[in-house]
Amino acid sequence: MRLLMIHGPNLNMLGTRETNVYGRETLGSINGRCNQLAGELGIELSIHQTNSESEIVDLIQSAPGSFHGIVINPGAYTHYSYAIRDAFAAVKLPAVEVHLSNIYAREDFRHESVIAPVVSGQISGFGGDSYLLGIRAVAELIKNA
Amino acid sequence: MRLLMIHGPNLNMLGTRETNVYGRETLGSINGRCNQLAGELGIELSIHQTNSESEIVDLIQSAPGSFHGIVINPGAYTHYSYAIRDAFAAVKLPAVEVHLSNIYAREDFRHESVIAPVVSGQISGFGGDSYLLGIRAVAELIKNA
Amino acid sequence: MRLLMIHGPNLNMLGTRETNVYGRETLGSINGRCNQLAGELGIELSIHQTNSESEIVDLIQSAPGSFHGIVINPGAYTHYSYAIRDAFAAVKLPAVEVHLSNIYAREDFRHESVIAPVVSGQISGFGGDSYLLGIRAVAELIKNA
Amino acid sequence: MRLLMIHGPNLNMLGTRETNVYGRETLGSINGRCNQLAGELGIELSIHQTNSESEIVDLIQSAPGSFHGIVINPGAYTHYSYAIRDAFAAVKLPAVEVHLSNIYAREDFRHESVIAPVVSGQISGFGGDSYLLGIRAVAELIKNA
Amino acid sequence: MRLLMIHGPNLNMLGTRETNVYGRETLGSINGRCNQLAGELGIELSIHQTNSESEIVDLIQSAPGSFHGIVINPGAYTHYSYAIRDAFAAVKLPAVEVHLSNIYAREDFRHESVIAPVVSGQISGFGGDSYLLGIRAVAELIKNA
Amino acid sequence: MRLLMIHGPNLNMLGTRETNVYGRETLGSINGRCNQLAGELGIELSIHQTNSESEIVDLIQSAPGSFHGIVINPGAYTHYSYAIRDAFAAVKLPAVEVHLSNIYAREDFRHESVIAPVVSGQISGFGGDSYLLGIRAVAELIKNA
Amino acid sequence: MRLLMIHGPNLNMLGTRETNVYGRETLGSINGRCNQLAGELGIELSIHQTNSESEIVDLIQSAPGSFHGIVINPGAYTHYSYAIRDAFAAVKLPAVEVHLSNIYAREDFRHESVIAPVVSGQISGFGGDSYLLGIRAVAELIKNA
Amino acid sequence: MRLLMIHGPNLNMLGTRETNVYGRETLGSINGRCNQLAGELGIELSIHQTNSESEIVDLIQSAPGSFHGIVINPGAYTHYSYAIRDAFAAVKLPAVEVHLSNIYAREDFRHESVIAPVVSGQISGFGGDSYLLGIRAVAELIKNA
Amino acid sequence: MRLLMIHGPNLNMLGTRETNVYGRETLGSINGRCNQLAGELGIELSIHQTNSESEIVDLIQSAPGSFHGIVINPGAYTHYSYAIRDAFAAVKLPAVEVHLSNIYAREDFRHESVIAPVVSGQISGFGGDSYLLGIRAVAELIKNA
Amino acid sequence: MRLLMIHGPNLNMLGTRETNVYGRETLGSINGRCNQLAGELGIELSIHQTNSESEIVDLIQSAPGSFHGIVINPGAYTHYSYAIRDAFAAVKLPAVEVHLSNIYAREDFRHESVIAPVVSGQISGFGGDSYLLGIRAVAELIKNA
Amino acid sequence: MRLLMIHGPNLNMLGTRETNVYGRETLGSINGRCNQLAGELGIELSIHQTNSESEIVDLIQSAPGSFHGIVINPGAYTHYSYAIRDAFAAVKLPAVEVHLSNIYAREDFRHESVIAPVVSGQISGFGGDSYLLGIRAVAELIKNA
Amino acid sequence: MRLLMIHGPNLNMLGTRETNVYGRETLGSINGRCNQLAGELGIELSIHQTNSESEIVDLIQSAPGSFHGIVINPGAYTHYSYAIRDAFAAVKLPAVEVHLSNIYAREDFRHESVIAPVVSGQISGFGGDSYLLGIRAVAELIKNA
Repeated sequence: MRLLMIHGPNLNMLGTRETNVYGRETLGSINGRCNQLAGELGIELSIHQTNSESEIVDLIQSAPGSFHGIVINPGAYTHYSYAIRDAFAAVKLPAVEVHLSNIYAREDFRHESVIAPVVSGQISGFGGDSYLLGIRAVAELIKNA
Repeated sequence: MRLLMIHGPNLNMLGTRETNVYGRETLGSINGRCNQLAGELGIELSIHQTNSESEIVDLIQSAPGSFHGIVINPGAYTHYSYAIRDAFAAVKLPAVEVHLSNIYAREDFRHESVIAPVVSGQISGFGGDSYLLGIRAVAELIKNA
Repeated sequence: MRLLMIHGPNLNMLGTRETNVYGRETLGSINGRCNQLAGELGIELSIHQTNSESEIVDLIQSAPGSFHGIVINPGAYTHYSYAIRDAFAAVKLPAVEVHLSNIYAREDFRHESVIAPVVSGQISGFGGDSYLLGIRAVAELIKNA
Repeated sequence: MRLLMIHGPNLNMLGTRETNVYGRETLGSINGRCNQLAGELGIELSIHQTNSESEIVDLIQSAPGSFHGIVINPGAYTHYSYAIRDAFAAVKLPAVEVHLSNIYAREDFRHESVIAPVVSGQISGFGGDSYLLGIRAVAELIKNA
Repeated sequence: MRLLMIHGPNLNMLGTRETNVYGRETLGSINGRCNQLAGELGIELSIHQTNSESEIVDLIQSAPGSFHGIVINPGAYTHYSYAIRDAFAAVKLPAVEVHLSNIYAREDFRHESVIAPVVSGQISGFGGDSYLLGIRAVAELIKNA
Repeated sequence: MRLLMIHGPNLNMLGTRETNVYGRETLGSINGRCNQLAGELGIELSIHQTNSESEIVDLIQSAPGSFHGIVINPGAYTHYSYAIRDAFAAVKLPAVEVHLSNIYAREDFRHESVIAPVVSGQISGFGGDSYLLGIRAVAELIKNA
Repeated sequence: MRLLMIHGPNLNMLGTRETNVYGRETLGSINGRCNQLAGELGIELSIHQTNSESEIVDLIQSAPGSFHGIVINPGAYTHYSYAIRDAFAAVKLPAVEVHLSNIYAREDFRHESVIAPVVSGQISGFGGDSYLLGIRAVAELIKNA
Repeated sequence: MRLLMIHGPNLNMLGTRETNVYGRETLGSINGRCNQLAGELGIELSIHQTNSESEIVDLIQSAPGSFHGIVINPGAYTHYSYAIRDAFAAVKLPAVEVHLSNIYAREDFRHESVIAPVVSGQISGFGGDSYLLGIRAVAELIKNA
Repeated sequence: MRLLMIHGPNLNMLGTRETNVYGRETLGSINGRCNQLAGELGIELSIHQTNSESEIVDLIQSAPGSFHGIVINPGAYTHYSYAIRDAFAAVKLPAVEVHLSNIYAREDFRHESVIAPVVSGQISGFGGDSYLLGIRAVAELIKNA
Repeated sequence: MRLLMIHGPNLNMLGTRETNVYGRETLGSINGRCNQLAGELGIELSIHQTNSESEIVDLIQSAPGSFHGIVINPGAYTHYSYAIRDAFAAVKLPAVEVHLSNIYAREDFRHESVIAPVVSGQISGFGGDSYLLGIRAVAELIKNA
Repeated sequence: MRLLMIHGPNLNMLGTRETNVYGRETLGSINGRCNQLAGELGIELSIHQTNSESEIVDLIQSAPGSFHGIVINPGAYTHYSYAIRDAFAAVKLPAVEVHLSNIYAREDFRHESVIAPVVSGQISGFGGDSYLLGIRAVAELIKNA
Repeated sequence: MRLLMIHGPNLNMLGTRETNVYGRETLGSINGRCNQLAGELGIELSIHQTNSESEIVDLIQSAPGSFHGIVINPGAYTHYSYAIRDAFAAVKLPAVEVHLSNIYAREDFRHESVIAPVVSGQISGFGGDSYLLGIRAVAELIKNA
């Protein structure tokens, strides 16, 4: 099983940026823990971080054939990128949207995800663990498909 | 570690009710899978189903001292029960809100959870697996607290 | 043919309560007239009044197998009980929502029924006669099903 | 007792038009069933269909003196014709608004009736039977007036 | 003079729950102070706490004949229980809605009370003293009625 | 100077219809008073009443060349007839919108006129006198043009 | 007959200010024309201009006993001064709100008058003539009272 | 191939009316150009202009059997005529909504078409050419059907 | 203990103005009752009435040093005076907002107080008694501070 | 005549992606048909597809001097890219916005185009033919400029 | 060059009032710094503070002839004083609106300035420096006029 | 002191683009004036223009360590780029948002900046001078930090 993991804009700043909101764990550490879990579950994980909306669209478009599912934290694009939404609607792979923080306990504009309606499910609020749960979730979806 | 699991209104109908939305797995089957995972993780699980808003409030109020965390699917109360919200705010235990279906892909009124802002996190869209992920999530929260 | 009739919150106060809005006929009198019509139409009628949202959910859940259809006046729950809505969506019996007063000629919050979209139809504005028309309506639905 | 029955715009298309929404019964068949019921109840029924908003206004204005009550399906005018609303407010006869389909289970714009606040009551969702129930309802209103 | 005092959901948690918002005084202490003032003013006070919406409706319905007025803190039901609103509208006793905290200085959803329009008046923001002021207020209303 | 005066839907009912809102003066009496004032001011007045939106559009379209200005009470069409609005925008004659009642003291939907933005001015709230003031107003507009 | 005429904020700037919107006639000229008409109609006119909201409230409060009616152009206070609204509601004299420009053809915030619902009527869009029409209108109201 | 072309309210005023918005071409000229293109494409074109909403409904209802498709400029009815919308939904012919001006660059109320959701497509902003493009578009739809 | 009491716009009209809403007690009578209670509680009371927003701001700004708390009925300014709100936020004295009528049972615009979020609490609906309760409330706040 | 044609995000997926919405024709096929029509009309066509918002802005900025007009399908950027809107406002070339599907018959967020107000016109709903019609439309605009 | 500087309501409290929001610098200190900069730039500065809306209107009206430009901090009036807005629209002098705090990082009601649309520009968020920047800005506007 | 200056999308078009809105000064000229002022104030200025949202995010992320503050004109991204907002929130450098035009005097969508709440302050409406004022403002912020 091969999974594509996408970190959206500003997630490269994790661990230094707004640590009261996002915690002190760096992206490197999260990726390390994800790779370890993937290894345990027999999953090949391909991880990407980008600040570019169009690169995220490109990544999603290129997934079918190469990957069985997607775990994505779209960062701020969560709230307005209909281009990313359309890319998910186009590829129709099992996909999970994850968030480090509980987006429903933050500013109003973070309560709406324009992407959530077209992915399989959403996990938010568990810090780096949100990614680990996302890997497990999408793996189950693929197994049961 | 002891966890309280609460199934809200109409979840006793699972497996027969609107199977195109909620799937064919019964509540009994989900509970069985949850108990098995709990066993593997060394967790004592106490499971309750009720259609009553006030019984859910009572359950949450009685949790501190008896349980280390809560996994709840508030069903339709998700969208209007400020009484349940206030109960969570009062007890301040690690708590996870789970949903079988992707509530963001359904009717507009299901897009807002009045409870999400006061619990630790939310998991939606993975059928019965949402509960299993919820148990893992809250267990991690308790360990890291 | 067996029908379940449910009177929601505060309907036990009929005849004394806000008679300018709801009229002077008591619930007992309405029930009497409903039983008489049911008798004429060869229908067995089981009538319940409760102020409790969860008891209404319980009643609806228990209907399949025992009843062929439901006539309900959800009272104030009409406007916010998604739990009752979900119960109707689960059981999928022919069901009619009735109101004594014309809810569209009253306060704004009474103009929206969260239950109407999942029942068969709605009758409002004819006082106690709304129930009689509701019995006739659901009986026709059952016959034509 | 004399009743005026008005079918609004596009109801002449019944039976061929959007049969998944409105059913396969033609307007002729509905009118036949209404005349039969009216005969049984000793009611003289005068039936009109028109696509014209002003003809509906004219019909309502001419009712007092000639008719004791009105049964109307305003069709699409339900949702924006304040002219028809004002006509009902002017004549103040017992009047019932009926709809074939459950307008609350359809598009958002069909959830609001600008006419409902000034008529006696509303019946929706029972196909052709909505008219039969409407005749019974308005007949009772006239008897009890 | 006999008064009914109703504490709504989660008020049994007072003194331990969110003390930054609600203060450190327990419900027992507030009740003690209320009984003392009632004694001074020659009032018989009957105090109830419940998490159940329908029990609050039942209490209000049973008040006429037994009580001259009502002091209520509806807790979270303040913001959505039209069933409690209708109960007040039905019994028409002098009634005062009280809140410990200044609900207008908190979350948006707490700014609207669906009950306030049908009770005599509202007092909010004075901690346990809100109840004492409520007793005085309703007592004056009864004297001047 | 020649003026076109248009009475919209339901104004033929004046004097009998909702006299608490519109007063007891009939349309005939108002027209008589308007003709008398027109005579005094040396104005030829052509008066029309119709319930039909399209006839109002036709009347407005035919005005240029025959009339120097228009006085109109669009009745309920005030609030939704963009067709009448477009007709006024097309002919660009001095025009005054009049209302018998104070439309700002009535239901919400009567607070907005879709026609007001394209006519010269608006007069509301003076019963039959609104028309007399309208004739004076439009006559001044024509003189000063 | 004695009338109070009030010019609100910035109307002292007429003739120099935004002449494309308000025209080139000065307040002095308008007042002159108003006095002339008042003389013809046998009316004593007392004219005031002020930029102060509280002075307008004071003027209105002092009117009963001294004046039979009021003509007011509240200027920008039209759109937010509930204090002026309450003053009119308190004194209950015949009163007319006038505007030089067609407020419905301008910015959105000018479409709503918070004062209109409590005065007798409104006249807008006729430049200085709006005042003359207002004097005629309120004089008729007083005669017919 | 036979097409029905419908011009809605006020389009008979083209060329004289608001030429800054709609241009200087008359309806006659547009019809001439449409007939010429129809001739080239081997299409029989039947052209109607009316200010009446109900006549437009009648025309649409009568199209099946006589025409293969419809080109319509509903004029102001675009924005509120649910009766015309329902007529299109009933006949289900290939149909194109055209507008001379770019309705999205004009007043807010012109941004929404209640008819667009039930026709095949929409063309706006090309003056008289919008009709020519509409004829080509609907002809292709019919060929590909 | 010294308290500042401020009566806002139009409260000088009490007893004559809209007595169906505000009752027949004059401001003089209320002030007399307040002075009596203040005497009993050992409080020096300084009472002011003004129609001027800026005078209210001035009074609040001058309170620190001279007074221990404030009781205010801001009248219509309740609903839009952010200047008064800012004055309260600046002085940070214990302060109570009072209203004679139940503002939640009146027009929509009276349901929101822009001042409530920055004062200690609010009391509404008890006529002149609202002031007496306000004096007691603020006195308790000062004692417990 | 030289035209720039821009395909926005996800349009490279045409023919495989959501074929129930967008049809089975690939982008290559559409481009082929466009080139053929351009040839017939004597137009040089330069076609670009990109998922990147800024590349679309760059393309539009570079058009003046090189191209006489633009045909664009902005894809999902239609609904939120004010950057693309500003680019069109800057270059002021004749430009047409096209859509394959009828965007007014889809999700709410697709009903608003932030770009439409600054281009010449819009064509939606005709599949690949929308592009062909767009080429014809912009060619006419250029000829008539 | 002569400039008018206006400090609106509550700005006399600076340095003592809500220092976490507005800082510890007093109005005297800010005025001193402004006078110093004005001296350096060869500007005569006339500084006023008032809590009165009408005095601000008076000041603005009196500016033409005496001053070349205006720097204003309208305080809370920023958000609702259309009277001040109209005064600026009337005098049409170069004018700058300044704010000490970043109004876009505060409560929702502070995000909208009703005055901003009619002044030249806005500067917010730099404490006392906002005034210094405002002086520079308006001086440049006057020089370039 | 080193400052980063960022020009967002379409600002490279300055001087040719919509000169009625943005003026005739080119970006080169503005940059020249900024460099001159920076030289006078002893500031090193690094200037970038890009149409790409992600490049702006990259620039902001790379600022800490290299620059002491940021001056940005986000162009159209002002109104929807939560990605840029998050980047500012992450780096927490003193930052000023500038606009050439008065965004509050333009289209509605330009009234809201999603970036303003997380930068230090905002300056709009002074053409190229907005940048000069921005440099001064951020320089003061850095000195006082």
